[in-house]
Amino acid sequence: MTNDIHGGNIYRKGRNVRLDFSANLNPLGMPESVKKAAKDAVDISDRYPDHSCGELRERLASLWRVRQDMIFFGNGADDLIFRIVRAIRPKHALITVPTFSEYEKALEAVDCNIIKYRLTEKHGFVPDEYILDVLDEYRDVLDMIILCSPNNPTGRLIDRGLLDRINKKCGYGIYLLLDECFADLTEQGVRYDFPFTDVSEFDIVLRAFTKTWAMAGLRLGYAVFGSKDMYYSTLEQGQFWSVSAVAQAAGLAALDETEYVRKAVALISSERQYLSEELRKFGFTVYPSDTNFILFRCGIRLYELLLDKGILIRNCDNFDGLGEGYFRIAVRLHEENEALIKAIEKVTEWQRT
Amino acid sequence: MTNDIHGGNIYRKGRNVRLDFSANLNPLGMPESVKKAAKDAVDISDRYPDHSCGELRERLASLWRVRQDMIFFGNGADDLIFRIVRAIRPKHALITVPTFSEYEKALEAVDCNIIKYRLTEKHGFVPDEYILDVLDEYRDVLDMIILCSPNNPTGRLIDRGLLDRINKKCGYGIYLLLDECFADLTEQGVRYDFPFTDVSEFDIVLRAFTKTWAMAGLRLGYAVFGSKDMYYSTLEQGQFWSVSAVAQAAGLAALDETEYVRKAVALISSERQYLSEELRKFGFTVYPSDTNFILFRCGIRLYELLLDKGILIRNCDNFDGLGEGYFRIAVRLHEENEALIKAIEKVTEWQRT
Repeated sequence: MTNDIHGGNIYRKGRNVRLDFSANLNPLGMPESVKKAAKDAVDISDRYPDHSCGELRERLASLWRVRQDMIFFGNGADDLIFRIVRAIRPKHALITVPTFSEYEKALEAVDCNIIKYRLTEKHGFVPDEYILDVLDEYRDVLDMIILCSPNNPTGRLIDRGLLDRINKKCGYGIYLLLDECFADLTEQGVRYDFPFTDVSEFDIVLRAFTKTWAMAGLRLGYAVFGSKDMYYSTLEQGQFWSVSAVAQAAGLAALDETEYVRKAVALISSERQYLSEELRKFGFTVYPSDTNFILFRCGIRLYELLLDKGILIRNCDNFDGLGEGYFRIAVRLHEENEALIKAIEKVTEWQRT
Repeated sequence: MTNDIHGGNIYRKGRNVRLDFSANLNPLGMPESVKKAAKDAVDISDRYPDHSCGELRERLASLWRVRQDMIFFGNGADDLIFRIVRAIRPKHALITVPTFSEYEKALEAVDCNIIKYRLTEKHGFVPDEYILDVLDEYRDVLDMIILCSPNNPTGRLIDRGLLDRINKKCGYGIYLLLDECFADLTEQGVRYDFPFTDVSEFDIVLRAFTKTWAMAGLRLGYAVFGSKDMYYSTLEQGQFWSVSAVAQAAGLAALDETEYVRKAVALISSERQYLSEELRKFGFTVYPSDTNFILFRCGIRLYELLLDKGILIRNCDNFDGLGEGYFRIAVRLHEENEALIKAIEKVTEWQRT
């Protein structure tokens, strides 16, 4: 009943994972105020949660300066990926690869034809303007495009100018789902706006509390729609009470923790640099990242050997568009990152002897 | 963003609800051990939850004496209704009315044709053996039947002999989804088995922790399949991490609270009798119930008038198959039930003067 198709699976029996570098969460952990709010909310969880997430909705609508019915909450962002795809029911959708595998699963679940735009190592796994040609080529059949920025597992933001041009092409009838679940942990920090100039009714931005405030176990994500029409079609495609009372309370408390995220972003920035440099010293190919994880390539069975030492990293060999030898690590606290580097040192020594 | 299509919506602004009789939860509230487990789990919720709900799965598989991959967990039972319906994708499904409205919504979301078997007041809103004729009549087109026992909002269990005969007819290619979310609170108490003699690969039983242990705000439900095949098709139809770490921990603690449920069942039994008798004294038509809520009919605008007094009951006028004048109340603690009866007394006095 278990598998490793995603990071963060520290529950497999007989494995003692003391350091998990496979899940990409805020290295500072969950803020104390969020923990407290979550625990307090257990005391009111003998009732149904507020199905509309009223307080959270009011706060976010005001931060985003959008109508309240342009925001949709879910049991984590992955709940929303499936729900929104069902609401749109695309016949043909474009995704880039490598990327988060849930997009493909959600599209397959509605029998959608998937067109894959391959990001190349040569271009640092970042979409370039050839994607505009692909959009032109498939314009007559495409209903949807799903982009991830920063992309998982590559960590790169999509250039804002390019995003604007993509969005403009989509404005004529192609839904653009932009997954920004890792955007809060880039150097730009927490933003409450669409990352392009003109917002159309076909735009959807996805955000998660999961990563930004390290609350993956509580499940909370939201989508902001370019129009209210999407709200009602998404509502029809799933359950009534999708967000727990605990997640709602934790989310409200999290929104006040702005300084905490700023601290995390600064830490991630310097630690990402530290880790990247150290990994390069081993001769690994390290790809630049804009957020809290790093993709790299090496010729060692690093996943298995580190697991022997109690360290879990993300083996990226099951990512479409990558393959054997690619790994992803989260950026964690300095001493944890040092422990990882030391463990890799041992692994490389062991390989040589 | 709010509406009253279900009970338990105590979050509407400007309303001071001091007693909620609209949500059907264990009147004893959430056990302390469950609260403690939930709060403790917040401390480990900075990680992803175990997507397979491993511990809970092991416990329930052993209680049910089924394979581990015959159990599927969801973010509350309503999550599972949508997910299972998507996995089956029925073209024609049979439901009884009145019943829980989410079945119809889930079926509509996959463009299913819905055949409604109307439960009549004359027969106490309980399916009788004519349903077998309907099954015969539609046998060639039906893919699925959804039954609720005890049924919501009528509170009646389906006769076990009849259920056996229905199930036998379904065994030849019709999925039978039996929603038993209120079964634990009937006089038979918590059972871990299918309520019919022969279990086929088309059988699915749905259970929730929500009602039995009053943990609606945490979201946890599960389905038991008659075969493992349903596990994988259901898995494909939704998110990877659907159950929070908090709900998993709470669920594990709840399974130990057997004495607590026994106490609740005894209380519900006597209080249901008390409430039914008192309601009849007002001249209301009270329908027999096997579980923790009661359906009744009266000619007073009871919903609005009780809400003025801070008491929320379930107005059943939006249930297909019912209509104006039907109301549902949960069975609560004796003093709360007394307060309700006193408030109705006042309302009826007010109506007379």
